[in-house]
Amino acid sequence: MQRGNMKDLTINNGDRAEILITALPYIQEYEGKTIVVKYGGNAMINEELKVAVMRDVILLSCVGIRVVLVHGGGPEIEAMLKALGKESRFVQGLRYTDEETMDVVKMVLCGRVNKNITAQIQAGGGNAVGLCGIDGGLFKARRLKAGGEDLGLVGEIASVETGLLNTLLNSGVIPVISSVALGLGEDEGKALNINADIAAAKIAVAVGAEKLLLMTDVKGILRDVQDPDSLIKVIPRGELEKLKKEGVVKGGMIPKADCCALAIDGGVKRAHIIDGRLPHALLVELFTDEGIGTMIE
Amino acid sequence: MQRGNMKDLTINNGDRAEILITALPYIQEYEGKTIVVKYGGNAMINEELKVAVMRDVILLSCVGIRVVLVHGGGPEIEAMLKALGKESRFVQGLRYTDEETMDVVKMVLCGRVNKNITAQIQAGGGNAVGLCGIDGGLFKARRLKAGGEDLGLVGEIASVETGLLNTLLNSGVIPVISSVALGLGEDEGKALNINADIAAAKIAVAVGAEKLLLMTDVKGILRDVQDPDSLIKVIPRGELEKLKKEGVVKGGMIPKADCCALAIDGGVKRAHIIDGRLPHALLVELFTDEGIGTMIE
Amino acid sequence: MQRGNMKDLTINNGDRAEILITALPYIQEYEGKTIVVKYGGNAMINEELKVAVMRDVILLSCVGIRVVLVHGGGPEIEAMLKALGKESRFVQGLRYTDEETMDVVKMVLCGRVNKNITAQIQAGGGNAVGLCGIDGGLFKARRLKAGGEDLGLVGEIASVETGLLNTLLNSGVIPVISSVALGLGEDEGKALNINADIAAAKIAVAVGAEKLLLMTDVKGILRDVQDPDSLIKVIPRGELEKLKKEGVVKGGMIPKADCCALAIDGGVKRAHIIDGRLPHALLVELFTDEGIGTMIE
Amino acid sequence: MQRGNMKDLTINNGDRAEILITALPYIQEYEGKTIVVKYGGNAMINEELKVAVMRDVILLSCVGIRVVLVHGGGPEIEAMLKALGKESRFVQGLRYTDEETMDVVKMVLCGRVNKNITAQIQAGGGNAVGLCGIDGGLFKARRLKAGGEDLGLVGEIASVETGLLNTLLNSGVIPVISSVALGLGEDEGKALNINADIAAAKIAVAVGAEKLLLMTDVKGILRDVQDPDSLIKVIPRGELEKLKKEGVVKGGMIPKADCCALAIDGGVKRAHIIDGRLPHALLVELFTDEGIGTMIE
Amino acid sequence: MQRGNMKDLTINNGDRAEILITALPYIQEYEGKTIVVKYGGNAMINEELKVAVMRDVILLSCVGIRVVLVHGGGPEIEAMLKALGKESRFVQGLRYTDEETMDVVKMVLCGRVNKNITAQIQAGGGNAVGLCGIDGGLFKARRLKAGGEDLGLVGEIASVETGLLNTLLNSGVIPVISSVALGLGEDEGKALNINADIAAAKIAVAVGAEKLLLMTDVKGILRDVQDPDSLIKVIPRGELEKLKKEGVVKGGMIPKADCCALAIDGGVKRAHIIDGRLPHALLVELFTDEGIGTMIE
Amino acid sequence: MQRGNMKDLTINNGDRAEILITALPYIQEYEGKTIVVKYGGNAMINEELKVAVMRDVILLSCVGIRVVLVHGGGPEIEAMLKALGKESRFVQGLRYTDEETMDVVKMVLCGRVNKNITAQIQAGGGNAVGLCGIDGGLFKARRLKAGGEDLGLVGEIASVETGLLNTLLNSGVIPVISSVALGLGEDEGKALNINADIAAAKIAVAVGAEKLLLMTDVKGILRDVQDPDSLIKVIPRGELEKLKKEGVVKGGMIPKADCCALAIDGGVKRAHIIDGRLPHALLVELFTDEGIGTMIE
Repeated sequence: MQRGNMKDLTINNGDRAEILITALPYIQEYEGKTIVVKYGGNAMINEELKVAVMRDVILLSCVGIRVVLVHGGGPEIEAMLKALGKESRFVQGLRYTDEETMDVVKMVLCGRVNKNITAQIQAGGGNAVGLCGIDGGLFKARRLKAGGEDLGLVGEIASVETGLLNTLLNSGVIPVISSVALGLGEDEGKALNINADIAAAKIAVAVGAEKLLLMTDVKGILRDVQDPDSLIKVIPRGELEKLKKEGVVKGGMIPKADCCALAIDGGVKRAHIIDGRLPHALLVELFTDEGIGTMIE
Repeated sequence: MQRGNMKDLTINNGDRAEILITALPYIQEYEGKTIVVKYGGNAMINEELKVAVMRDVILLSCVGIRVVLVHGGGPEIEAMLKALGKESRFVQGLRYTDEETMDVVKMVLCGRVNKNITAQIQAGGGNAVGLCGIDGGLFKARRLKAGGEDLGLVGEIASVETGLLNTLLNSGVIPVISSVALGLGEDEGKALNINADIAAAKIAVAVGAEKLLLMTDVKGILRDVQDPDSLIKVIPRGELEKLKKEGVVKGGMIPKADCCALAIDGGVKRAHIIDGRLPHALLVELFTDEGIGTMIE
Repeated sequence: MQRGNMKDLTINNGDRAEILITALPYIQEYEGKTIVVKYGGNAMINEELKVAVMRDVILLSCVGIRVVLVHGGGPEIEAMLKALGKESRFVQGLRYTDEETMDVVKMVLCGRVNKNITAQIQAGGGNAVGLCGIDGGLFKARRLKAGGEDLGLVGEIASVETGLLNTLLNSGVIPVISSVALGLGEDEGKALNINADIAAAKIAVAVGAEKLLLMTDVKGILRDVQDPDSLIKVIPRGELEKLKKEGVVKGGMIPKADCCALAIDGGVKRAHIIDGRLPHALLVELFTDEGIGTMIE
Repeated sequence: MQRGNMKDLTINNGDRAEILITALPYIQEYEGKTIVVKYGGNAMINEELKVAVMRDVILLSCVGIRVVLVHGGGPEIEAMLKALGKESRFVQGLRYTDEETMDVVKMVLCGRVNKNITAQIQAGGGNAVGLCGIDGGLFKARRLKAGGEDLGLVGEIASVETGLLNTLLNSGVIPVISSVALGLGEDEGKALNINADIAAAKIAVAVGAEKLLLMTDVKGILRDVQDPDSLIKVIPRGELEKLKKEGVVKGGMIPKADCCALAIDGGVKRAHIIDGRLPHALLVELFTDEGIGTMIE
Repeated sequence: MQRGNMKDLTINNGDRAEILITALPYIQEYEGKTIVVKYGGNAMINEELKVAVMRDVILLSCVGIRVVLVHGGGPEIEAMLKALGKESRFVQGLRYTDEETMDVVKMVLCGRVNKNITAQIQAGGGNAVGLCGIDGGLFKARRLKAGGEDLGLVGEIASVETGLLNTLLNSGVIPVISSVALGLGEDEGKALNINADIAAAKIAVAVGAEKLLLMTDVKGILRDVQDPDSLIKVIPRGELEKLKKEGVVKGGMIPKADCCALAIDGGVKRAHIIDGRLPHALLVELFTDEGIGTMIE
Repeated sequence: MQRGNMKDLTINNGDRAEILITALPYIQEYEGKTIVVKYGGNAMINEELKVAVMRDVILLSCVGIRVVLVHGGGPEIEAMLKALGKESRFVQGLRYTDEETMDVVKMVLCGRVNKNITAQIQAGGGNAVGLCGIDGGLFKARRLKAGGEDLGLVGEIASVETGLLNTLLNSGVIPVISSVALGLGEDEGKALNINADIAAAKIAVAVGAEKLLLMTDVKGILRDVQDPDSLIKVIPRGELEKLKKEGVVKGGMIPKADCCALAIDGGVKRAHIIDGRLPHALLVELFTDEGIGTMIE
């Protein structure tokens, strides 16, 4: 990684040192802990944000935090299907994943997105290994039925095997994981497409993570979507259902919040919906008092 | 893996046991040794052969042999480029690999071929992890110039980092590796396409392999290409250049033979060009007296 | 071990490979598991059978199965007592083991039989270590009383110390064990003669074995001793007592069956009475679907 | 350690994050490397500077740098001797260290200064262990003669035993070391006073340190002592003698520079004379491009 | 350590060997066990006794016993306070420990006494490391209130962190520990003075010691203080309170006995009040049938 | 082992402790070192001496010395051959070892003598494992020819494999080894009889022993065999040949001395011919200044 291609901060060395020192208590707090990051949204598209996320991840790894990065890649899959002229069939309003579609999913997620992220971390001096749920039998999944109907090669995770992950984390590696699983039963030997948020939550539970961080393109959960100042900073797990009933947690926030709940119920200490559009969102969340976004605990 | 879906061999159990016992000296010979297999050709296309190769690899791993599988995937890349309507530019008669082409290479090799192989080994009860040269910094490469001209994102391997490989091999995992490397210098952070045969040979050298096995679609090196009985079973390393000059080793066999020479010169004990069209070519080569194909030592 | 001194099997290499592959699921099933074999009967007398058993044991060890071999040696002890002109005293119809007799037992079992087996495994390329219950304090025993009467230096096992066994098994060694124990109480410092079948069962329990295999000179437990086709392939542990009452399990089969029951009750998964007169009985039992002999589970 | 008792830096979180990121390349550079710091001068007297040094040391340890802290304590020893009314005898202008004086040296260095530093690091959340050269046989020394005359219990280091240091460094502990050694020969069982700068240099050599940092009360080596802008930033080892002859390196700087030379000659990569009067001098030296003070390499 | 400076024992080599052999059962009994010794009283003042204690400790360590030595140093602290002309304030008849006093405590205990003991063990060929409760966070303490009144920097142990101790004991080191702790709460970063007997008992509990040995200047607990023959050799833990009520255990023996009770209640097998005025009291206690002093169990 | 069955030594506990302490420097000297003892002669026949040797061995093991015990057993073999009425053939005045004789050798050495020694050490609380050269492939041997003539199954050691020995020594076990080897070439799978003194010397070399101790029935090497006071205490390796020429080293002492020379030439520090008729000869040799017998260095 080149040194110095940062925006020009006119701050002297002494002040720089003090700023480093303000990070110390946070570093001490998280050292040796595991943080699972679901990487997605704008932070995966905007080049500048991408660079910032990778640097954050490398820094976290350097100061002794065990980081796992989980990613999906919906928009890139869409684009490739289109480029290949593949027409989709829909079931209950959801795309049916046939073998051809799944092939594209694997290629885009495991071949392009995953290896691009891994290459960027390597180039920045970090040590990453790109995997999917097939490798080392990480994720085994069964077909997911939507309203009793088959969606093709779409799976829900049945088991998480953390042997390989732990080996890698113990030797200081950053695992980068695509949301693809190994099929069970009739789908033995095949790949199934799985939801990346849920994959991240399941990993967080399986490795006993301290935090799950879901990177999104919103500020967090807002009391009033029109009013960015209405951010709810903390939601106790016990109040989540009430907020859903009241319609405060709604729309696209519901699956995100459910995913956080899944992690918390499995023993993860805290789960956060954070705004990936902010540069260095990960560092700000982890290394400052106020943090960012909405925390469910 | 289902038991019993083998062709019906009318052999009684006693004889089966004796046949197993005939494999014992070979198992003792290779136990704990590392074998690098370049997987390719028909054995990677024909469904029945694929199944047989995966079973062989799992068996080798089970009896304590450390197996590394390296693969390319030229024909599938071709097909995908065509499907995407990508037109190629040629330099010195060689395809120029621009960013778009490299993107397809990564998707096909690392996303489809690699994960399919890995899934099949997992389904057969083996433990495989699919990687490319980017992961763990396995391969670093510089641009390869052909007659002084740039071929785009095509690389030649500058370094091999075996840390991750050894960790995996030591815990009984079968690494499956795509021929893609991490760029150096101007290409830092980018992927480069590398030759899979050479990648296999370089790994064989770096991990101190006992054998390099190149699976091809020919019987081996023939004195007379028309006459399958003219197979040369053993070529001492020292005589290879002479056979090339004499035109015995020619055409497509030249790069294969050079690759074997590269391995031998780096300390690999033996390198073999074997016929991947035979079912269980790996087992026959390793576990019978006569072996198959051409051995360079 | 010399290659090739097998009977001539006119089977081509491809078929050989497929036969190896049929063993794969069994190898996968038993890899890393511990199998305790009570070696005895004809298989310990007939030279050809001896060679076959040793090869089987080496093969099992090579494919990652942890094998423990326990042996007795009644007939050889008899012969030596006779050669030395030692006359025996009988108590309740059982031979009384005085110090002189015990001395012969130790010499024959620990000095001749044990070291012969060990030497044969070493010569075949396996790594064996010959031990008795004295070494590393493996077996401690108290005097066994028969109907209240003392039988001299005959013991029943009071404790099994597996430290040494596990150290050896973990480094790939095949322990070969004579049925001699270290005395307790009044017999401290002395050796006691113990029953080899029970010793095998106790070891199987202590090391958490997957299987106990008792090699005998019969086909297994037959419903009708006259009719070899009346072999009972499986006896659930719960039905054993009934079969004994019904007289189906009788005579010399009773202690063998009780020994199996002892193993099962101690947590061993399966115990088998197998026919050691068949060459490669161990391989056939472990590596084919039907197995051989009678299994108690 | 309390959070937040820093001077108020009106810098937003995003900028804070970027400043952390600018430290990343330096953290990557020094991770797992060993840095030996000779702590002394004003930085050991001024309360604010003390706090800053301890925080720096903890931060370095947190980001994976192995830090060894070596200290003397001349002024405090003086004060205590005076408080006890102890009169000193001088030899060749140097204080003669009799048993009573040595007793005071041990008490002040090993009992007060060492434990105060250790307590402060512990309170800040670091893990320190306070030692002197007696512990684990770290330093063995012989009497130092000045111009042939005995100075009493003053030693020069004869051997460094790093076993204990490595054990501690490997488990993430910060060793804090007083400049007291174990006597050899006639002084067996006695403590000898040793020079702390040299002790630091000897440890740096013995543990294969990346850097030796001598904290002083000057800016570094100045070409013109009157002109703070005449700081010499880098002195190649080969030019040091010339600079001493020319009188550029003179007075109190000579032993400091010699000490650096000792370290460099023993294989330490770089040795620095830095200005301990600057807050966070350690962080600024290690984590910024320009560094501070004079580097000898 | 010099060989041979023992009093002249006119005993031949054969008898010497037999005497060594009489120690064997005791060595076997304690091998690998941990013994915590509170070192104090005359044995810490008389030069000859000091030498004898250090030799005992080294011998115990050599034969595989894990020894921890805990010491106080009241009289030396007194003397130093007096030498410095420090006047003491008393609260409830107990000396108030102000910062200046605590400073002297640290210097005398951690700087002089601790390092002298450590140096002597090193000189005798043992491997000792001198520590106090600050190092590695061994002891954390809160202020002790006497009858509700503050005694200054006097603490009672709140937690014992054995990580460092176990690391040292596992590598054959003899930890020598001063009775000084790290303050909690308002005293964070400060040292507190703690009772050495209790410190020894707490360590014995925390490391799961086999024995706690308190070295005193009395024969043990006597039924009649005037009559040395009235030594009570064994007091069952359950009878201790009764003996206190009866006035048999009284005066200075009460805190010693309570300290033993603390150890026993925490799981230590036996606690002994032994007579440190006897040379080799430790060896005699551990390596002879009758032992010495009073044992509470 | 029972406590107290020693001859009555009227020595008080204090003196006992001092005698233990006189052993300390020797214990420190040999701790962690390996001592190979060739056990034989009267010390293996006389019951009282046997007990004393076993206690010595256990004590040495307890104080951290790694002890290997090698034994032969000529007289017991003779007696058994006689009891079996086996007549011997002689070649060049040496007994010809046919298969039947070798069978007796194995039984007596590996079955009786070895297991008796092992049982005695176990009973005394030591941890011994009885082995011969067959176990773990410890000794491989070729036939020894005497003056060109075949002596049957008599071997000379061709290789020593210390893997198993080191595993056992590292876990505190005392290996007890019979002088029987595994044949090579024509004798593959057979046992060969080897010289126990040479076996001990070869092991001492292979494990890097500090000392080789040959227990004999003489005082050592005497200048005048008639005069017990003419014992030569030390023979430098370089002078041995001269002493042989001069006839000082003669008869049965020649092979003993040659065996010591073999050890010294292979890197063993010291080799001793000691008088096994003295009780506790091992302790006296190792733990007293003067030692006993003749040392070659």
